Amino acid sequence: MNLPASLLEILHTIFGPGACSTHDAERLAYAYDNSRRNALPDAVVFAQEHAQVEALVRACREHRVPVIARGRGTNTTGATVPVQGGVVVSFERMNRILRIDPDNRLAVVEPGVLNGDLQRALAPHGFFWPPDPTSSPWCSIGGNLACNSAGPRTVKYGSPRENTLGLRAVAGTGESFRCGTYTSKGATGYDLTRLLIGSEGTLALITEATLKLTPKPSGLRTLRATYRDVSSAAHAVARIMAQPVTPCALEFIDDVALKLAHDHGGGDVPLAGAMLMIEVDGEPDTLPSAVDAVSHAARGEGLEELRVAQTSEETQALWSARKALSPAQRTISPNKINEDVVVPVSRLPELVNGIRELSRKHNVLIVTFGHAGNGNLHVNLLPRDDAERERANACLAEVFALVIALQGTLSGEHGIGLVKREFMPLAVEPSALDLMRSVKAAFDPDGIMNPGKLLP
Amino acid sequence: MNLPASLLEILHTIFGPGACSTHDAERLAYAYDNSRRNALPDAVVFAQEHAQVEALVRACREHRVPVIARGRGTNTTGATVPVQGGVVVSFERMNRILRIDPDNRLAVVEPGVLNGDLQRALAPHGFFWPPDPTSSPWCSIGGNLACNSAGPRTVKYGSPRENTLGLRAVAGTGESFRCGTYTSKGATGYDLTRLLIGSEGTLALITEATLKLTPKPSGLRTLRATYRDVSSAAHAVARIMAQPVTPCALEFIDDVALKLAHDHGGGDVPLAGAMLMIEVDGEPDTLPSAVDAVSHAARGEGLEELRVAQTSEETQALWSARKALSPAQRTISPNKINEDVVVPVSRLPELVNGIRELSRKHNVLIVTFGHAGNGNLHVNLLPRDDAERERANACLAEVFALVIALQGTLSGEHGIGLVKREFMPLAVEPSALDLMRSVKAAFDPDGIMNPGKLLP
Ligand SMILES: Cc1cc2nc3c(=O)[nH]c(=O)nc-3n(C[C@H](O)[C@H](O)[C@H](O)COP(=O)(O)OP(=O)(O)OC[C@H]3O[C@@H](n4cnc5c(N)ncnc54)[C@H](O)[C@@H]3O)c2cc1C
Ligand SMILES: Cc1cc2nc3c(=O)[nH]c(=O)nc-3n(C[C@H](O)[C@H](O)[C@H](O)COP(=O)(O)OP(=O)(O)OC[C@H]3O[C@@H](n4cnc5c(N)ncnc54)[C@H](O)[C@@H]3O)c2cc1C
Repeated sequence: MNLPASLLEILHTIFGPGACSTHDAERLAYAYDNSRRNALPDAVVFAQEHAQVEALVRACREHRVPVIARGRGTNTTGATVPVQGGVVVSFERMNRILRIDPDNRLAVVEPGVLNGDLQRALAPHGFFWPPDPTSSPWCSIGGNLACNSAGPRTVKYGSPRENTLGLRAVAGTGESFRCGTYTSKGATGYDLTRLLIGSEGTLALITEATLKLTPKPSGLRTLRATYRDVSSAAHAVARIMAQPVTPCALEFIDDVALKLAHDHGGGDVPLAGAMLMIEVDGEPDTLPSAVDAVSHAARGEGLEELRVAQTSEETQALWSARKALSPAQRTISPNKINEDVVVPVSRLPELVNGIRELSRKHNVLIVTFGHAGNGNLHVNLLPRDDAERERANACLAEVFALVIALQGTLSGEHGIGLVKREFMPLAVEPSALDLMRSVKAAFDPDGIMNPGKLLP
Repeated sequence: MNLPASLLEILHTIFGPGACSTHDAERLAYAYDNSRRNALPDAVVFAQEHAQVEALVRACREHRVPVIARGRGTNTTGATVPVQGGVVVSFERMNRILRIDPDNRLAVVEPGVLNGDLQRALAPHGFFWPPDPTSSPWCSIGGNLACNSAGPRTVKYGSPRENTLGLRAVAGTGESFRCGTYTSKGATGYDLTRLLIGSEGTLALITEATLKLTPKPSGLRTLRATYRDVSSAAHAVARIMAQPVTPCALEFIDDVALKLAHDHGGGDVPLAGAMLMIEVDGEPDTLPSAVDAVSHAARGEGLEELRVAQTSEETQALWSARKALSPAQRTISPNKINEDVVVPVSRLPELVNGIRELSRKHNVLIVTFGHAGNGNLHVNLLPRDDAERERANACLAEVFALVIALQGTLSGEHGIGLVKREFMPLAVEPSALDLMRSVKAAFDPDGIMNPGKLLP
């Protein structure tokens, strides 16, 4: 127990006994996230309103104690692990949808609202919020914003940075502020909204978000294309993205992933050299020409089979491989190294071939799949023992070097957190890192906001 | 002449005689912009490459001399007026399109490229860059980015913040840096790219931009709807934006503007209570249902006539009123006060009615038109003499108060510059202004970058 008694007393006053804990059970529960790293916080508090968050940051600043924001801990980079102890503030109870305003195509939410709950609430109004991480049922809007999390739909509809209008927040100084607008457009000063998005809780705590909504197209068609090898599939991705009809999902799955999913997800999963899942959406009468356009681009050297789902059951069957992937990987390696590198789509063939070679060279099993339309691939290294783990780490460094050589970057959507910060200098030059550090100092002069994350 | 000789010598060395001037003729030519404010710079330099820009900022920082970036001086807020003297750096000669990369849907350009030239270069590839200020033939990409400039298409395709992937720049510290990515997605550190967009040259000088391109839809249909009064038209805007088909232009023109354009632009312009110009785009087979959807929403209380253009000549005729507006206004008032306030679309009826009342109350002619689909209206006060000018200023303050009361903000696309900075506290709370000042200090510790702009 490191917290000064005076701070503990303030925390109890702010949050009350049911929402402030220093018990081992709570501290343990909030020590780790989906990265499986862990470190004990000194206290856990559960915010329910903005004023509490402001009081918390002020008190922590006065005592120079770290504050670590937490949504639902589903991030994969250790971004919520309290590496220097301090107070974890969980937003899970601050989960009200404050307003759905379809006339202005926006919604105002507290940060603890789950992505899936928001989408469900928007559906009757004919709208959706584009960011759609696969973890949607379990992850919070606050986490989505703080990580700039994305998903299959991002290729057409953008990430949180393209879909957020304004924020309310408390900076590391302890000052509350609002930024952005309640309008779909604005040019009134610096864009603090986007600066907070993707900042992983290192600048400010988000207590409210004004989200831009998109009308939900009433039609959707799903296609599945299998290819002889990863390279042919990667070339097809580049062809699909070079023509005008932008799919609303363009997912790539390599042969190793297909085999895994086949073995664990059942016979529906095809065994092929690689597979693409392609979706197009729009008003129903626009779909046939859209399907034609992407089908045309999907065809070419190495295509084995192209199927268009005719019913929603078929659609679900087509997606089964993609869905079976996450659980399947866990059966092989409890220590999987989960990356989400991104390259320009035209370089995808070089990336997948390069990864294939590195897997061979280092003798490490690598499963590759992901949001190919954005050039964003999940490269999962699956070491089975300590020796393999060492080889996997060596291999990882070469994966990053390859990505940078292909004009890509370290992360498309998972962020940097704890586990990738030492690699930041590969992707961001020293002068830009220095500017980021100055920005950090402007928001958080005492370095209390989620220390040890994002910046090397 | 205020510049120290040592600085002048360095400037001459960096830029050479043909690209560095302290002659009155050049100083006068670069003293003003479209705001008609003016102040003489001490020197004007013409950058042609990044290294020169870096050397310039370093030298100016050493000498504590202001640096004012200039594209083509078309901004309306005095953003390029060197109010404290110093060196104007014009980017007009740094105007190469460095790369068009259709496979990755992006283009890399120098800041001096004209928006219109870029669009023309992209057309053969089937792409466009969405930001489309009406000034497109004469304004630069650097200016577009620095102001977050937008246009009719923004309602569907977004502003520069949604359409820029990465930048190269020189901060006020004199440090060069790159930010953002060469990919369509990224979560690698703070979003310095968006922070520079809309910062009006007060943080850094942009020397290169990686722009996100959008495939150009092959079909377009134009509709013109006239209404009994401004209020009916404003209600129609809200109805159009509340249904799923997003138009690619939704422009509002009030009765005063129509009369003006009619008197100066010829008989094609209808005399009505208000008018909407509506465009939908997409693949040709999708247009009939899109036209139906927006037509349905455009109909209602107060509609007088709804016309769909059948030919491109008709389309041009329908747009004639909108095009005739700018020149027409100049004939009335050389001192027009040109605002571009923005409110949530559902509040547009209150805004147009409120402006109507303020015009009456202060006895000032006000012309209102603009990008209604974003709730962004150009409110132009047209005082004809000094007495009216005084009344116009009083009226303006009430226009801003009305906009803020309607949850709107000061500027949708023109920015703040010199002329609106004193109003910033209306729209941005003190704590957020403080954060903006700290961000400014992080990039520009000596306050040499475009001093006297944006922040009050
Ligand atoms: C099975 C699975 C699938 C996934 N699929 C995807 C995917 O497709 N795409 C994707 O992008 N990610 C994916 N993820 C990763 C993860 O779900 C996302 O990063 C998600 O946005 C995290 O949300 P969270 O609520 O769990 O946030 P947490 O993990 O609790 O926190 C994440 C970061 O946000 C910060 N934070 C949280 N709330 C706030 C706040 N209110 N103010 C300031 N900072 C805050 C934290 O400090 C931390 O830095 C997946 C994870 C799992 C387990
Ligand atoms: C007839 C007319 C119509 C217009 N219509 C529209 C419209 O529809 N929508 C709209 O948004 N605006 C409109 N404008 C305003 C103006 O055209 C835009 O603001 C435009 O983006 C300015 O571009 P510019 O090259 O002229 O920049 P300038 O006016 O030269 O500069 C504008 C700002 O950008 C900064 N800047 C320029 N280059 C750089 C650089 N390389 N690095 C850093 N900072 C830089 C300057 O310091 C200044 O702060 C219109 C103007 C006119 C005259």
